[in-house]
Amino acid sequence: MDGVKGFREFYPEEMAARRRVFDRIESVVRGYGFREIGTPALERTDLYVEKSGEEIVEELYAFEDKGGREVALTPELTPTTARLLADREQALSKPVKWFSTRPFWRYEEPQSGRFREFTQTNVDVFGSAEPAADAEVLACAADALAALGLDASDVEFRVSHRDLLGGLAELVGGDSVDVEGVIRTVDKRDRTEPSDYRAGLREAGFDAAAAERFDEVLDGGLDAARAVADDAASAGDGGPATRVLDAADAVDTVLDAADAVDTVLDAVADRGAGEFCTVSLDTARGLDYYTGVVFECFDTTGEVSRSIFGGGRYDDLVGDLGGTEVPAVGFAVGDATLEALLRRADLWPAEERATDYYVLSVGDTAETAAGVARELRDRGHVVETDLMDRGFGAQLEYADGIGAETTVVVGERDLADGNVTVKDMASGDQVAVPVDDFPGERERPTYEDFAD
Amino acid sequence: MDGVKGFREFYPEEMAARRRVFDRIESVVRGYGFREIGTPALERTDLYVEKSGEEIVEELYAFEDKGGREVALTPELTPTTARLLADREQALSKPVKWFSTRPFWRYEEPQSGRFREFTQTNVDVFGSAEPAADAEVLACAADALAALGLDASDVEFRVSHRDLLGGLAELVGGDSVDVEGVIRTVDKRDRTEPSDYRAGLREAGFDAAAAERFDEVLDGGLDAARAVADDAASAGDGGPATRVLDAADAVDTVLDAADAVDTVLDAVADRGAGEFCTVSLDTARGLDYYTGVVFECFDTTGEVSRSIFGGGRYDDLVGDLGGTEVPAVGFAVGDATLEALLRRADLWPAEERATDYYVLSVGDTAETAAGVARELRDRGHVVETDLMDRGFGAQLEYADGIGAETTVVVGERDLADGNVTVKDMASGDQVAVPVDDFPGERERPTYEDFAD
Repeated sequence: MDGVKGFREFYPEEMAARRRVFDRIESVVRGYGFREIGTPALERTDLYVEKSGEEIVEELYAFEDKGGREVALTPELTPTTARLLADREQALSKPVKWFSTRPFWRYEEPQSGRFREFTQTNVDVFGSAEPAADAEVLACAADALAALGLDASDVEFRVSHRDLLGGLAELVGGDSVDVEGVIRTVDKRDRTEPSDYRAGLREAGFDAAAAERFDEVLDGGLDAARAVADDAASAGDGGPATRVLDAADAVDTVLDAADAVDTVLDAVADRGAGEFCTVSLDTARGLDYYTGVVFECFDTTGEVSRSIFGGGRYDDLVGDLGGTEVPAVGFAVGDATLEALLRRADLWPAEERATDYYVLSVGDTAETAAGVARELRDRGHVVETDLMDRGFGAQLEYADGIGAETTVVVGERDLADGNVTVKDMASGDQVAVPVDDFPGERERPTYEDFAD
Repeated sequence: MDGVKGFREFYPEEMAARRRVFDRIESVVRGYGFREIGTPALERTDLYVEKSGEEIVEELYAFEDKGGREVALTPELTPTTARLLADREQALSKPVKWFSTRPFWRYEEPQSGRFREFTQTNVDVFGSAEPAADAEVLACAADALAALGLDASDVEFRVSHRDLLGGLAELVGGDSVDVEGVIRTVDKRDRTEPSDYRAGLREAGFDAAAAERFDEVLDGGLDAARAVADDAASAGDGGPATRVLDAADAVDTVLDAADAVDTVLDAVADRGAGEFCTVSLDTARGLDYYTGVVFECFDTTGEVSRSIFGGGRYDDLVGDLGGTEVPAVGFAVGDATLEALLRRADLWPAEERATDYYVLSVGDTAETAAGVARELRDRGHVVETDLMDRGFGAQLEYADGIGAETTVVVGERDLADGNVTVKDMASGDQVAVPVDDFPGERERPTYEDFAD
């Protein structure tokens, strides 16, 4: 039988690995004081059309429900959180720090690493325009990756500001440059041939010298960006008045943006996550959406070529969505690219079932076996017993199959002597233990506790 | 702005309570060796039509996707698990023990305690026809409720067997009785006037004496059921041949079912969960679906009048769904009725935000404050710091608002002396502590650790 195309199911072994990954992320996120919210799977289709226009409907699972409502499976979280923020505008004390892990749905062509149903953890600070909020989000993202075993040799956060690329294009290329065209070209830089890249810049209005200078600036980081702005400021002194005003705007924009990146990165360094971050002026992530510092997380080896995830400041979006005006900064990490990265780094958790104890009952020992199982479960362990009325050998085979660490054999003859047998499944070593002494006061008794 | 009717959102305080409840349930379920699976939100609509007929579509969020597929938001888990079992029939070793907690969707009229989007934890054993599997499921359900603070004075599992009610109706009322009609009438017994109930039984073919006897049997439990079967067996000795055969079938059915209930309840008692269970012959739960022992969980006070949740054995369903023939037993507990029960029992977790530490930074102390916060987070605590560039008083107010247990004040003057101030938020007591000694070796340092 087939499921729906682009939708996945996860059997226990794979699900255990996924659970471990998202639990670790959530544990870090909770440590930063982000609070979990619960959100619906359906919203009115209008919520997305108002933001993105009618054409967005083609990418949604949108339909009319039995009551004639136009509804859509939620493709992302932000419009919903904007609704929640607006509904409780007065009651929520700032900053509002929310997270959640849940599925989203998009009607896109499935391909490697992209599914129609995917899971995403969204982490956002609402209500603070301070650089500390940006830094907190970056540090939290870095800590989450560190909790998965990744370090700065595995991943880098390429940090920029949404105003830098456009401002620099204007200052280097002059008034006639098509800023949007430059941004589109730079955004594709990694995926295009150098000659095509240069052609793109020319098409956007750069001459050869300007294109070369522009590339040098992008590679030169914030210092180079500031130098361009300073040059433009002094050059502007002699130019015509309108040109001076335009350039002065761009100069201020670039200098302010460079300062904002520096301030945030200093605060990230205070938080101990500086080594994950590099300034990357060619980060052109979602310029319609973001309003300030932006970042994208990449695999440093390049083996996973797509961005793993990204985030940044989006101060206008909540207001644009019909909610209240609320500054916002956050990130969202999805399951597919994260799994690709963790597999590349050999850090994807083992896909196996782990069992602390199997309690093997043979003969008329069900009640004692059930009691032993119960006591072990009360101590927080995963404990299985026979549900198939199987014999000794078949039970032992099953215990092995579920990865039981210890098997406790409750046999009729042993029990007549007041004993159970504690067997270490890895070594096969076993020892008789008085049933009254098992588990006794021990939190996690194993063969070693009883072996002489 | 409105969300979709029948869909809920959960702000952090309420979500924290829900999370605590489902985490406790899942922790118990994992302890029994049930393994989590991940399942899609959409299935082909056919999967439900094949099981329940075309009319089921009216109760589904069913629609045609952009690719022309008829799909539906999953209203329940079983058809999906049947698909997963069939897809890996050979690879899965028995018993298969699966659980998951996730939303489901039904287009029903929302009312108190019923929503169009609801969360359910499903717990099932597949592949074992043994009473031990039924008992394991019942014990696991009882343990999950116990983990939430409920005991046998709060809830009872009314246990029966799907064959008992029909078999008894036949034996007490004779051939001409409309067995389905009797079952429907009994199913509504709690919600109907005694006179309407009696009228229902008469309509189903009982005379007044038979109706009275039937009620006595239902109240009399398994012993009364066995007595009815024994009487019918001896009475049958003198009757016409066909009547004897029919009655003999019903006699065997009732005796076998009574024995099955006893065997399962003995095994539940071995598992220490016997006190939660009572035999209740008028439990008529889902007779189309279940094939063996069934149970329903009720509020003993009756304040929550609906069934909290239920479960039982359904050996035919997985095969009927086009999968492989697999015996199955399980239960599913939903969020709404469980919340109603826990609120009734005053066991719904406090809806509040809990914070271990607020690290308050004033003056040029951001780096030290960030370091303190980091060390506390590394120990697994929930720690917030200032993201709003607020002053001392506003930060302390915020710390109070998020329920911080301890506030660590990192002030410029204190820090010049090498100190931070550790403040107990409940009492307001505070003490200066050398910053080098905080948190030091302590796992969870509080005011008490430093007060003289």
